[in-house]
This record gives sequence, C-alpha cells and structure tokens, in this order.
Amino acid sequence: MNPDIKQALQDIVGAQNFTDALVDLVTYSYDASEYHHRPEAAVWAETTQQVSAILQLACAYKIPVTPRGAGTGLSGVTVPLLGGIVLDLSKMNRILRISIEDRLVVVQPGVVYAALDEALKPYGFFYPPDPASSRVATLGGNVATNAGGMKGAKYGTTRDYVLALEVVLADGTILRPGVGVMKCSSGYDLVRLFVGSEGTLGVVTEITLKINPRPRAVSTCTAFFDDLKGAGQAVAEIMQSGIIPSALEILDDQCILCLNQALNLNLTPAAALLVAETDGYTREEVDYQMSKVLEAFRHHQAKEIRQADAPEQAEPLWAARRAIYGAVAHLYPHIIVEDVTVPISQVVAMLEGIQALRERYQVVIPVLGHIGDGNLHPYLTYDGADPAQKELIKKVEAELSALAIRLGGTLTGEHGIGIGKARFMELEHDAGEMRLMNGLKRLLDPENILNPGKMGLEA
Amino acid sequence: MNPDIKQALQDIVGAQNFTDALVDLVTYSYDASEYHHRPEAAVWAETTQQVSAILQLACAYKIPVTPRGAGTGLSGVTVPLLGGIVLDLSKMNRILRISIEDRLVVVQPGVVYAALDEALKPYGFFYPPDPASSRVATLGGNVATNAGGMKGAKYGTTRDYVLALEVVLADGTILRPGVGVMKCSSGYDLVRLFVGSEGTLGVVTEITLKINPRPRAVSTCTAFFDDLKGAGQAVAEIMQSGIIPSALEILDDQCILCLNQALNLNLTPAAALLVAETDGYTREEVDYQMSKVLEAFRHHQAKEIRQADAPEQAEPLWAARRAIYGAVAHLYPHIIVEDVTVPISQVVAMLEGIQALRERYQVVIPVLGHIGDGNLHPYLTYDGADPAQKELIKKVEAELSALAIRLGGTLTGEHGIGIGKARFMELEHDAGEMRLMNGLKRLLDPENILNPGKMGLEA
Repeated sequence: MNPDIKQALQDIVGAQNFTDALVDLVTYSYDASEYHHRPEAAVWAETTQQVSAILQLACAYKIPVTPRGAGTGLSGVTVPLLGGIVLDLSKMNRILRISIEDRLVVVQPGVVYAALDEALKPYGFFYPPDPASSRVATLGGNVATNAGGMKGAKYGTTRDYVLALEVVLADGTILRPGVGVMKCSSGYDLVRLFVGSEGTLGVVTEITLKINPRPRAVSTCTAFFDDLKGAGQAVAEIMQSGIIPSALEILDDQCILCLNQALNLNLTPAAALLVAETDGYTREEVDYQMSKVLEAFRHHQAKEIRQADAPEQAEPLWAARRAIYGAVAHLYPHIIVEDVTVPISQVVAMLEGIQALRERYQVVIPVLGHIGDGNLHPYLTYDGADPAQKELIKKVEAELSALAIRLGGTLTGEHGIGIGKARFMELEHDAGEMRLMNGLKRLLDPENILNPGKMGLEA
Repeated sequence: MNPDIKQALQDIVGAQNFTDALVDLVTYSYDASEYHHRPEAAVWAETTQQVSAILQLACAYKIPVTPRGAGTGLSGVTVPLLGGIVLDLSKMNRILRISIEDRLVVVQPGVVYAALDEALKPYGFFYPPDPASSRVATLGGNVATNAGGMKGAKYGTTRDYVLALEVVLADGTILRPGVGVMKCSSGYDLVRLFVGSEGTLGVVTEITLKINPRPRAVSTCTAFFDDLKGAGQAVAEIMQSGIIPSALEILDDQCILCLNQALNLNLTPAAALLVAETDGYTREEVDYQMSKVLEAFRHHQAKEIRQADAPEQAEPLWAARRAIYGAVAHLYPHIIVEDVTVPISQVVAMLEGIQALRERYQVVIPVLGHIGDGNLHPYLTYDGADPAQKELIKKVEAELSALAIRLGGTLTGEHGIGIGKARFMELEHDAGEMRLMNGLKRLLDPENILNPGKMGLEA
C-alpha cells in the first residue's frame, strides 16, 4: 500500500487500528464462504467520523473499501474481491439505547445478536430475526444481508425491523435516514435502500431496530416422514390451518444419514425430519397452535412424533437440528451452503429437484430448510482438492439456482448475493431491474469504491 | 389538450376510457385533502400495456401523469398539481390470485381493501394494514402512501407486506421487482423503493401481498381518563407489559365534546377516552393481554372501564371511535387531518403541545390517535371562507409539524407527504437525504412526468 495512504489511514484511526501485517491480511481474505481475496490493509473504525474520513480518503484515491463485521457471511459479501481496504466495524459494538416504551433499540453495527438478546431478556423483549450465526454475527452484517433465521415465517426478516440508520455514503457524507417511530410515510424509503445492499451503497454506522415482547410459552415437536411428499403436505396443511409456527424446520434423508454417521445420533432413517415450534403468551395459545401442527403431522403419516412443552424438555428435540451443520462439515470439509427460497407450495418440487441433481451428478447434498417460509439450505458437498469435483459442484449450483427461479423463487432468502450468486443475478432479475440496480449503485457510489465486484453489478 | 395527444390516448385506452369533460375534470381535481388542481384529461387504464403506452406517450410529450385510485388521500397525493393526465387505475380491480398455502395474494391496484378482506374471510386469513378508508380506498393507493391503520402497532404497515410488484416506469418499461416468497435478499430492495413513493417513481399495476391468519378471538375495552398524563402513563405501562394490543386508540377532550355536540352521545367529559383491543387464537391469550391493559388502566385512575369479549358486545365500545371523523366534519366543514407520529414516550408531550397551540391561537383541534404506535391525527379545524383563518391554521400546522420533528417523530405516519407536507420536508430530512431523494427521482423519472410537484422534490 502506498505509504501516503497508509499514513493517512493511521492518522484517521490511530496506528493501533491499522494493519497490513500478512497474518491479518490473510484472515481478512476470508468469510465463511469458499471465496477469498487478500486486501492491502485493514482498519478498525471506532467512530462514525472515522468511517467518514476513511471513505473520503478512499474516494479520493479510488481505493475499494469492504465493510466487515464478524465475517460469518456465506456468500462472500465481505471478501475484498478487488483488494483495497477492509473496514472492520466490530469495535463499534455498543448498545446505545434500549427504550422499551418506544419499542426500539439503537445499536452500533458491531453489536452481536446474542449480546443484544442478553440485554433485552431482563425486559421481556427480544429482537426476532436470529440467524444461525447469532452468537457471533453482527447486527451490521444482518442489515447488510437482510438476515433472516428460523423465525422468518412468523416474525419476518431484518428489513421488517430496521426503523432508522446512520449510514456513511461513499463520499463521506453522513446520512441519518428513517426515524425511531413505529410508522413513517415521509418521502422515499431510504432506510430499506440500504438494508440488504451488502455494503455496496454505504457503510452502516448506527441501527435503530424495532423490538417485540418475548413469548412467554413455547411448545416443540419433532416427527419423521417416510415420504417427502407427505412431509410437504403436512407443511401445506399447517400453513393453511390458520396458525403460523414460530419455527418449522426440515432435515432431509441425507441430513439424517450425516447425523448418524458423524455423531451416532441413531436417528430413524427417513425421508424427512420436521421440527416445529409454536409460541405465545399463554399455554393455551401455544397448545392450540401445536394441536394444528400435530393434526397435520398425523394426517400425513408422521412417525415417532415427540412433543415437549418445557424448554429443557425441548432441548433434545432440537439436538439434531442444531448439530446438522457441524455433522455435514465433519464429513465433508468443503461445502457450499445454498440459500434458495421458493413458494411454500413449491418446496417439495424443489426438494425433488435436488434429489434428481444428486442422482444425476452423484453428489451428496443434505438439505436443511426453514420449510415454513420456503427457505432451503442445500449443503453442496465436494472435494476441494479435486478441480473436476469443484467444477461439477459449480454446475450443480447453477442448475439448483435455475430451478429455484423456475419454481417462482429467489436465489437467496437470507444470505445475500455477494460473490457466490453474482453469476446468477440475471436469472432472477431482468434487464430493467439490473439497469435500475446499476443506476442506484452509480448514483450512490459513482467511483465504485464500496465493496466493488459484488452482486453482479457492472464493474 | 392537444388533439393529437387526445387522439393517441383514445387509441390506447378506447374513447370510452378517456375524458376531458369538465364535470370529470372537476372531480379529478380533488382528493380528500383541501388541495385541488384541474387536469387536462383523465384516462381509465385496464391493462399494464395501456399504462405503459400512456407513459411512453406522456414521456415523449413531457405531460404530467398523476396515478389515482379512489382519491381518498388526505395529503393531496393524487391531486394533479401541474395538470396533465390523471391516470385512473380503479378499473384494474381484479384479485388475480389467492394462495393460502403460499400466504400471499396477487391483486391489481384498483382492488379495494374491503373486497380483499371479504375474499380472504372464508379462508380464515386477512391482510392486516387496514386504513380507516378501507371500505373505499384501493390497495394501489395504500402502496403509494405506505398506508397503516389501527393495527399498525401489532401488525406493521403496508411496506411490511408487499412481497413483489409490477411497476411501469416513466419511460414505459415494465418492471417486476420482488418475488412471491416469504424471504428475499437478492439485490437491492427495489420493491420498497416504490412503496410509499406516492406515484412519483412509477405506476404500480400489480401487487403481491403477504397475508396472515385471522385472529379467532378478540377483546375490547374502553376507559376515560381525567388526566392526559394518566392516559399517557397507562399507554406506557401497556407497551412495557410485554404485550402488543391489536388496537390502542385515543380520543381527546375536544373529540369527546364534538361527539356529544354533533351526535348527542352523552359521553363523560374527560381528558381522554382510550379504546383498546387485543387479539389471538384463543380466549386465554386474548384475556391475558387484556388483563395487562386493564391493570394499566386501573393503575392510572381510569374511569368507566367497559369491556366486551364478543364482537357484537364490542360494537358499542367502538361507536365513539368510528363516529369521530363524521362528528368533527359535521361541526367544522373545513379540516386538515394531520398525521404526525412520535415515539410513544413523547405522545403526551405532543398532545400537550397541541393543547398549547389551541390556547395560543384559539382554534379547535380535536385529536384522534393510534396511540399504541405514536401516530396522531389532530383535526385542524378552520373556516375555509375566511382567508385569515386559513392562514392561521397553516401557521398552526407548521408549528405542529415542527414540534413532531423536535420530539423525534415524523411528519406523516401513514398519509404521505403529497402537497400538504411538502413544505415541511426539510424539517425532517437534511440536505443529504433531500439530495438522495432528488437523485432517485431523476434516476427513475428524468423528465419529471410522474406526479410532479409532490413531496418537496425539485421541480
């Protein structure tokens, strides 16, 4: 890195918050995806003013800046594809305000979901969108990817909760779109322009989030299905029964095999394992909803139905679900975690399509899914040491993505496009949409310094 | 209107769907606000292709186009301020698809809320954001203004439910942003760029909405408070009690006076009347929530607490709330309906500020509010025949708006900026935000033909 720029960066953040040491640059080359590219430097920002000064400098010298939280992304969103500076926001990790009466919190982007959850517990409130990585992932990252999680069907995703932001634009301008109130129809929705924009339109430095009362009661159940169609029909029946489960998860046959193989869980071989949770303020409310779930399970030949009301009894029912990623990763060190989302009526067609791909290409693709909202995570496993395998899995990924679009779905329900899905953007978005997205990018970042090379946008 | 353009419009929509008759142009000069301006012509579009052809023509000749549904807007959003063409979408009123399994409906913009609600009832589902005008207002208009309603605190507003759109851009391009699934993180959020954009960025021709299971049980209660602070404290206690009422409404002292004067309702004079509703799947759930409401009411010296479980018993409790606009309008033929929204903790300060304005300027301002989400509708009454009164009320409006912003709120929670609040935009949105909004407008509508002159944007 040019010594003048290095000095200027150190002047902004302090020498202790700047690094170009190889060990750091290697670390900052990766997120949780299979992509990597080394930056020239990384800085830890501690204030909005520093972020603004960094972007002004980067803009003047046309240096790419890739904002980063915990680096748990699965699509390469925080991989600095064109080098430049990684802007690490994890030190901006203060919860600035909790106002229960106003139903909101104000946080810095580096606050981890779990820390916010702990802070809200004593008040009996919570912030619903909880990604699987919630113990490490930052809320800034959640905003950047419009993160979802298991509660999406009932509670929605990040964009439904962001009331206001502080964002630093590419030229260093500090913008504060939105307002900390429950309803707002004042001008264009600048807040949601940034939510899910993967750090390509601005750097989020403060977030105001709506919060909800925490449910006081839950019920959990699990059931096995010999027939994928039966599981799908059970889900369809639940969704039409007039309730929304707070979680409805599927682990398919290959997931069950992986869990048995890797962890000796000794689960019944089956086409699918469903895990359902209902929540509410009262036991009756939870039981009423669970009765609808159990009814649907029984109508469609579920086996080994287990149910638990108390959280400690529910824990074993969640064991398989919680262990799945670890089990698959243990057996198959190279995994591309897909994130296709289809209409609930098309979930079985999607799962069958994945089975056809497995057979056709002889690959292992365990599928975990938030089936209650149509969001599936096929784990595309491959041997990274074998270039032919890698090429093959990329072909499988392309077919899988195309199928999701044909079924009326999207490439990504909660992980974002990043690098991984950039090549498929035009499957989902026609020329008019791509033109508009490129227009937005040019309007907000004419020098293309903010996380360039992502989302299939023009270089 | 230039005869060539008139002929071209008639060729697009058919002679029967074109008008430049004075009686029609006068009708199309108005919405439900105090603003009016006559268009040169009005057309009823019946297809997306017609909308596209109209916009291409308008773009070529640089003629303003103002999209319009039922014309129930309270901010002048559909008043054709610069003349040109009114594009009436009320004939595009078909419900195209109801998919309960997928939790969505696809509708044309002219569908009225009440018609959708009727269609969903047999399935036990509903579309939550229901504005007070839901018996006549169109869903296209709801999308254009990001409409809310009484259920906002618990269920959110329009933007939380729009999954996908078909939109015709200013140049006639037909765009289909979004996808009919529960979760999507694919590229920029083009859907919400249009939600709340008041027809200034594109004309919405199809809407995909998320729907919810309909609650099976409700409870309603009313109570009077002698002290505004007491009512405010009761609301604060409810919001901190770990539940969210499905409705929490306030009618202030002047509302109560108006109701007694206009309709002889014989209500107890009081500082405030609160109406609360809780909902759920089971009686226990509803009762639990209502117990928190009643507790809070009792803690803060509520009088005449009445409660009803069955909908028919609840009807009289809603009588005052439902009658209020009619009562005020009966007594004061000229009303500006304000829409300020503040953090819930600031609602009492806002109400006290309104009382101070009443006294200072000797005007009658009954206040109805969705107090559970901080959204207040002060009715600014005045004598429209007296120019001095009109000027005075405009001054009151300016002070009221400034106060809402000072209290950390917004100019408009659910009505939109339109003409009415355009002059206050810069109170809420700083130079950076206004620059970005103007940039978006230029990007999408470089000729400024779409509903020009609104939202405080550059001409």
